Amino acid sequence: MDTKGRYQHLTYTDWTVRETQFEPDQFRYRETVFTIGNGYLGTRGSFEEGYSQASPATFIHGVYDEVPIVYTELANCPDWLPFTINIDGDRFRLEKGEILSYERKLDLRQGILSRSVRWRSPNNQIIDIHFERFANLADEQVLALRCQLTPVDFAGAIEIQASINGYPENQGFNHWELLDQGKTEAGVWLNLRTRSSRIQLGIATSIKISGAEASLQVTSPPGYPTLIASFLASPGQTVTVDKLVTVFTSKHVENPVATACEKLVQLPEYSFIIKTHSQAWEEVWQKSDIVIEGDVTAQLAVRYNLFQLLIAASRNNDQVSIPAKTLSGFGYRGHIFWDTEIFILPLFIYTQPEIARNLLTYRYHTLPGARRKAVHYGYKGAMYAWESADTGDEVTPRWLPPNDPYGEDIRIWCRDREIHISTDVVYAVWYYWQATNDDEWMRDYGAEIFLDTAVFWSSRVEYNTKHERYEIREVIGADEYHEFVHNNAFTNRLVQWHFEKALYIYDWLYKTFPDKAIELEDKLLLSIGRRSRWSDIITNIWIPYDESTGLIEQFEGFFQLQDINLEEYEPRTKSIQAILGIEEGNKRQVLKQPDALMLLYLMRQSQEPPYNPHTLQANWDYYAPRTDISYGSSLGPAIHAILASDLGKTAQAYERFMQAALVDLENVRGNAPEGIHGASAGGIWQAVVLGFGGIQMGDSEPIAHPHLPPGWTRLKFKLIWRGKWHEFDLGNGEWGQGDQGAGSRDRGNS
Amino acid sequence: MDTKGRYQHLTYTDWTVRETQFEPDQFRYRETVFTIGNGYLGTRGSFEEGYSQASPATFIHGVYDEVPIVYTELANCPDWLPFTINIDGDRFRLEKGEILSYERKLDLRQGILSRSVRWRSPNNQIIDIHFERFANLADEQVLALRCQLTPVDFAGAIEIQASINGYPENQGFNHWELLDQGKTEAGVWLNLRTRSSRIQLGIATSIKISGAEASLQVTSPPGYPTLIASFLASPGQTVTVDKLVTVFTSKHVENPVATACEKLVQLPEYSFIIKTHSQAWEEVWQKSDIVIEGDVTAQLAVRYNLFQLLIAASRNNDQVSIPAKTLSGFGYRGHIFWDTEIFILPLFIYTQPEIARNLLTYRYHTLPGARRKAVHYGYKGAMYAWESADTGDEVTPRWLPPNDPYGEDIRIWCRDREIHISTDVVYAVWYYWQATNDDEWMRDYGAEIFLDTAVFWSSRVEYNTKHERYEIREVIGADEYHEFVHNNAFTNRLVQWHFEKALYIYDWLYKTFPDKAIELEDKLLLSIGRRSRWSDIITNIWIPYDESTGLIEQFEGFFQLQDINLEEYEPRTKSIQAILGIEEGNKRQVLKQPDALMLLYLMRQSQEPPYNPHTLQANWDYYAPRTDISYGSSLGPAIHAILASDLGKTAQAYERFMQAALVDLENVRGNAPEGIHGASAGGIWQAVVLGFGGIQMGDSEPIAHPHLPPGWTRLKFKLIWRGKWHEFDLGNGEWGQGDQGAGSRDRGNS
Repeated sequence: MDTKGRYQHLTYTDWTVRETQFEPDQFRYRETVFTIGNGYLGTRGSFEEGYSQASPATFIHGVYDEVPIVYTELANCPDWLPFTINIDGDRFRLEKGEILSYERKLDLRQGILSRSVRWRSPNNQIIDIHFERFANLADEQVLALRCQLTPVDFAGAIEIQASINGYPENQGFNHWELLDQGKTEAGVWLNLRTRSSRIQLGIATSIKISGAEASLQVTSPPGYPTLIASFLASPGQTVTVDKLVTVFTSKHVENPVATACEKLVQLPEYSFIIKTHSQAWEEVWQKSDIVIEGDVTAQLAVRYNLFQLLIAASRNNDQVSIPAKTLSGFGYRGHIFWDTEIFILPLFIYTQPEIARNLLTYRYHTLPGARRKAVHYGYKGAMYAWESADTGDEVTPRWLPPNDPYGEDIRIWCRDREIHISTDVVYAVWYYWQATNDDEWMRDYGAEIFLDTAVFWSSRVEYNTKHERYEIREVIGADEYHEFVHNNAFTNRLVQWHFEKALYIYDWLYKTFPDKAIELEDKLLLSIGRRSRWSDIITNIWIPYDESTGLIEQFEGFFQLQDINLEEYEPRTKSIQAILGIEEGNKRQVLKQPDALMLLYLMRQSQEPPYNPHTLQANWDYYAPRTDISYGSSLGPAIHAILASDLGKTAQAYERFMQAALVDLENVRGNAPEGIHGASAGGIWQAVVLGFGGIQMGDSEPIAHPHLPPGWTRLKFKLIWRGKWHEFDLGNGEWGQGDQGAGSRDRGNS
Repeated sequence: MDTKGRYQHLTYTDWTVRETQFEPDQFRYRETVFTIGNGYLGTRGSFEEGYSQASPATFIHGVYDEVPIVYTELANCPDWLPFTINIDGDRFRLEKGEILSYERKLDLRQGILSRSVRWRSPNNQIIDIHFERFANLADEQVLALRCQLTPVDFAGAIEIQASINGYPENQGFNHWELLDQGKTEAGVWLNLRTRSSRIQLGIATSIKISGAEASLQVTSPPGYPTLIASFLASPGQTVTVDKLVTVFTSKHVENPVATACEKLVQLPEYSFIIKTHSQAWEEVWQKSDIVIEGDVTAQLAVRYNLFQLLIAASRNNDQVSIPAKTLSGFGYRGHIFWDTEIFILPLFIYTQPEIARNLLTYRYHTLPGARRKAVHYGYKGAMYAWESADTGDEVTPRWLPPNDPYGEDIRIWCRDREIHISTDVVYAVWYYWQATNDDEWMRDYGAEIFLDTAVFWSSRVEYNTKHERYEIREVIGADEYHEFVHNNAFTNRLVQWHFEKALYIYDWLYKTFPDKAIELEDKLLLSIGRRSRWSDIITNIWIPYDESTGLIEQFEGFFQLQDINLEEYEPRTKSIQAILGIEEGNKRQVLKQPDALMLLYLMRQSQEPPYNPHTLQANWDYYAPRTDISYGSSLGPAIHAILASDLGKTAQAYERFMQAALVDLENVRGNAPEGIHGASAGGIWQAVVLGFGGIQMGDSEPIAHPHLPPGWTRLKFKLIWRGKWHEFDLGNGEWGQGDQGAGSRDRGNS
C-alpha cells in the first residue's frame, strides 16, 4: 500500500517516534506501532479513553486458548487501559469535540508511551490531557498509567473512571470466563479463566489522585470493575491520576488473583516505579543498542525494530518463544515460526545470550509435540511444527475457510511440507553454542534437539535407486510460492549440514559427557548403524547445484517452469500470488522470498559450501529479479539488503534495508495493523551488524568488514562472543572491506 | 443420557412447569427449558443475577452475522436480564449464601417465567426474592422484568443494579461492535452493530421502584449501561422494582436506538403491560390449545411443545423462519432446515395459517439464494439450501474441524446431497394451499417456488438408458446414516409427487391467472417441452418398491448391506453412529430416522401411493427395528408414534410419543442445553391431532378417526380448514377408528 503523502507521517528523532496529528485512517496500524511491553506482556497502542475503530490488545506470553481451525491462539487478555474522563457531562473521546493540539510519542530509550491533547469539549470547555504509560521492565507484572488533567479555561467538576475491561476479544472471540471480581482497600480486582486451556488470570488496579480533593467510588458491573473519582478542577491547575495495575496468571503463580491483590498493596509510588523501569531499560540498551550517525531515519528505525524485539522476548520464562507478530497483534494468532530462530535470534545470541537460551529452551520443552507430529506423519524422532504454540504440536491451520458459501476451501500445506523448520531450529542451536560455548546447555537441551531432529530426517529422506542419491520429495522450501516440490536445494543442503553438525555434536558429547551420550542413545534409540547412515546421507544427498556456473536450481525442474518478468506487473499494490492465483504462481519462476539466496545467506555465516562470492553473484543475478520482494514475504528485504551490500550494490542494499526497517513504522505493506513484523525486525539487526558492519565470527573473536550505506558516518554497537564483550565503532570510507578487526576493542565479560 | 432418578424432576400441572429445587448440574438444560419469547425474540432461562455456568442468550429473528465454517449464525443479542441485588455488601448469587426455599415456574398460559427464592446471605440476613419476566406478546419490542424484595429478618440498605450487557457471546464470539451509549430521562441505552452484516441494534431500559424511597444513579462502563438504586428496606416490607426494556434493530426500523428510547418513554406501567400481554396469549391459546384429560404429564408436555413453537414463530415478519433449535439455544446456529416445513408447519397451517404463510413466504424471499446454489452445483432453477439463513444461500458447514491438531477433518455432505429439502418446501406449500385455499398467495409466491424447484429437479434427475428409467443418484435421504446412496425411495417418490403437483398448479395457474402463468413462463424459462419432460419423469422415475410384498427398499442396494440387531447394543447412551463410526454405519442396515416410513407418513396425509395399510405394516415391520430411535435423530419418535398408533401398537405409540414430548423437559437425549428440539415439538402436534386424533382432511372438512392412548379420557382441539373453524372434542373408547366426522362442529370463520 503506497500511503506516502496521503497522511501526516510519523516523525523521528534518535530515540523517539512521534505522531503529531490524529488521523483516524491510520489508527489501526498506529495501534501496532505504539505497542509497549516488557517481555512478559505486550499492549497495543490503543487509546485509554476508547475509540470506535480501536482494536485494543494485551497478550501475555504462553496464555493460549483453543479456537477452531487454527487450534490455539494467544488469548487477548483483559484490557488494563480503560480510563475515561467526564467534563461537565462530556466524555472525552477523539470522535467528539475539537482537537486543538495533539502529540503522541513513544520514547524507545525508556519504553514509555505518552500523549498530549488539548481538547475543546462539545460544551466548549478546553482542557489539557496528558497520558503516559509503560509496562514495567523492572517488575514485569506491574503496569502503570498516568493521566494529568489541566483545565485551560474553566473550573468545574471532572469525573474519571479507571477500569479493567474483562471482555477482551480476539477478533470477536472472548476467551475468558468470568470467575469472580471484587474490591479491596487498595482497589478492585477481576478473576478470569480461559475457556479451554483453563488458565486463570488475576488482575487488580488502584488509582491515586494528587492535585485535588477527590471522592472515590467503586462500581462493579460484571467483568468491568471500575474505580470512579470526582474532583473539582481550576484553570491552570493540574490534577494527576496514577493508575497502577498488577496481573498474574496460573502459568506463573498458584493463586493469581490473590498474588495480584497482594502485589498491588505493596506497590511503591508511580515516580519510583518509573525510575526503576527506566534503569532497567538503560541496562538493556547498554547491551543491545546500535548507534548510527548521519541518517536519523535509519537510526530511529533500527532502534524501533530492536525495541519491538526487546519487549517481545521473555527474560524469565523458557517455556515461551516470540510469535511471528510478537505480542503486538492478532496476525498468525501468536503462533511461532522459523522467524524466531533464523531471523530474530542473532540479536539475542550476540547481545543478550541468556534470552537466546530461553528462546531455544522453548524448543526443548516442545520436543514432545514435535515427536507427536513425527508419529502422526509416520516418521521417527522429532519433527517440529511449522506453526508452534504452547505444546509444540502442529497448529498450522489445514484450511483457509471461505466466507462465500460457495467459495473453495484453500488447503494450506505448510504443516505437511514446510519441513525445513526442524533444521532452522538446530541452525540456531548451533550458532548459539558457537557464540556462547554454553556446553552445559548443549548437553542438557541442545544435543537432544539436534539428535532427535536428525533421527527425523533420517526417516524422512528417501533413497532414489535409479539416480543413486538421497532425495527429499514433496516439500515447500523457503519460497512459499511453490507448494509441492522435490529436492529443494535450500532444504536438502540444510539437512546435509544438519547431519554434519549432528555427527560433530554426537562425537563431542561422547568425548565430553559420555554419560549423557549414552543416556541419549538409549532415549532416542541411536545406534552405530544409524550414525553410518547419517554419514551416507551427507555423502549422497542430492543438491541441485551446477558447480561450473555456480547456479543453484531452486528445486528439481525449477528452470523448466515458465519464466516471468516482474517489471511487467508494475506498478502493483499486491503480491504476485494475489495477482496470478496460487496455481499459476506454482507454475512460474517467481519467488515469494529468497530460497537459493537464503541458503547462501545461511551458509555465508561460516563460509560453507555452496557459499562463495562466485555462487552468490550467479544466484543473485538469477533469483533477485524473480523475487516478489515488495509484496511477497516480509522476510525477504533484509536478506536481500545484506547480499546486495556484499555484492557492492549499495543503493539497492539501502533501499531493501529501509523497506524492511519501515515496514511497520510506515505500514509499507499495508498489513501493520495485524502486528509487528518480527522476522523483518530481526533481519534489520542482521543487516546492520552482519551486513553493513560485515561482522564475521573468527575463531577467537568477531571481526568487522564494514561497508556502510552512503551517509552513515558512524556505526557503533557491541557484541558478546564466548563471554567477552566486543565494541565496534565503525566509520564509512575509513575502512575498506578487507580491514579486519576494525574497531573491535575487547572489554571483557560485563 | 439417562438422567432419571439422579435429580429432582420438574413437576407438571395443566399449564405450569415447575422446578422446586436448584440443581447446578441441570442448570444448562433448564436454561433451555425456561426459554420465553414472543415471535420476535427468544430469551433463554438464565438467572437475572448471573450464574457461573450460565449461557444466557437472546436471539432476534433475522439478526444473522458472519462466522467462520458455518458462514453465518443468529447473533446472540445484548442481554436484557442483568439485575443484581446487594445486601449489606453481599451480592445475591446462588453460588453463595444458603437457599432456604426455591421455586421457578413457567406459566405457559400467560407466557410468564417467575422464580421465588428465600436466601440467607453470607452475612446471615434472610430475604425473599421474587422475579418474574416476559417478552410482551402484545407489543413485541417490549420486555419486562419485575423483582420483588422482602427482607425477612433484617432492616438495611439494599442496592440493585439493572443493566444491559452489551457483551453477549455466541460460545465466546461477540458479534457486536459498540457504537454508542448514553442516558435519557427515562433510562439508559446502548447502540451496537453486528461486525459483518452491519445490523444496528438499539436497546433501552428504565427502572421504577415502589415500596421504598430510592436514590437513583446511572453508571455506564463501555457496553454495560447500568441503573443503580439504593433504598432502605424493613422486615416484611416488599420493595418492587420494575425493569422495562425496548429493543429494535435496523432490520425493522430506520433508527433503532432512537426508536427504542422513544418507545421506552411512552411505555405504560408494568401492570398494564402484563395485562395486554396475557390477553394476547389468551387469543393465541384460543386457536392453538390442545386439551388432554386423564394424563397430566402429556397435557403439560403437549402445551409445552406448542408454547415453544408459538414463541418461535414470527407473527409480523415474512423474511424469517424457525431455526431448528428455535430461538432458544446455540445448536445449529439459528439455521433453518426441513424441520420447519415438514415437522413444524402443520400446527400453524391448521391453527394459525397467517403464521404458516409468513414461514412459507420466507422460502419465497430466499429463492435468489436457492438459485445461486443451483448455479453453483451446475443445475437449473432453485435448489434450496439444506441449511438456510438470511439469504437462502447454502450455509451447511462443509467441514467439522477437529480440535486435535492431528485429528481428521470430517466432511459434511448434507449441503451437496441432502437435496430432498427442495421438495419438503413445496410439500408444505401444497398443504398450506389445500388447507387455506389462499389462491392469491399461491399465485404471488407459492407457484414460483413450486415451479422453479421443479425446474431444478428436471436438471437433477438422470436418465438411465440401460434400465430405461429416471434416477436420482448420489444423495442423502431422510436417513442421514447413509451418506452416499442412489435412488433413495423417499427422495425419488417425493420428486415424482413434486412433478405431479407442479403440473397441477401449472394448469391451475394457466386457467385461473393466465397473466401470472405467462409471467412465470418467461421468468423461469418454462416451455411446452419442459412440461412434457416433467410428465415423462413422473412416468419413468424409479421407485425401489416391491408391490407384491409392499416393501420399499430404502435405496438401491440397501437390502444387500450388512444387517444389524440393535438390541445387541443395549443398554447404550449414544447413537449407533457414535458407536460404530460414520463409515461402518454406512455399511449397515441401520437408520438414524424413518426414511421409507417417513415417505409413507408423508403420503398418508392424502392416502397417495405407495401408502396403504399393507405397505405400512410391511415397512414398519422391516424398518422400525432397524431405526436408532433412541439416540439417532430427534425427528424420528413422533413419526414412529403416529405410525405405531395407526398399526394399533398402542403401548409403543405412547412410549415414542412421550419420548418426543419430554425430549427437552426431561433432557431425554442429553442435548437440551443446545436448544429446543423444534421439529420434535412440531411432531408432537401432528402425533396428537393427526395421529391420536386421526384427523384426515376430507374434501369438505377435517374428519377425526380417533384412537387415543390409554388413560386419555378426553382430547379437545380446534382446526381451521378453508376459512372455517372445526372443534374436536374426542373421548377414548367412545369412537372407533372408523367413526368419521366425530366431534367436529363448524363454528364458521372466526
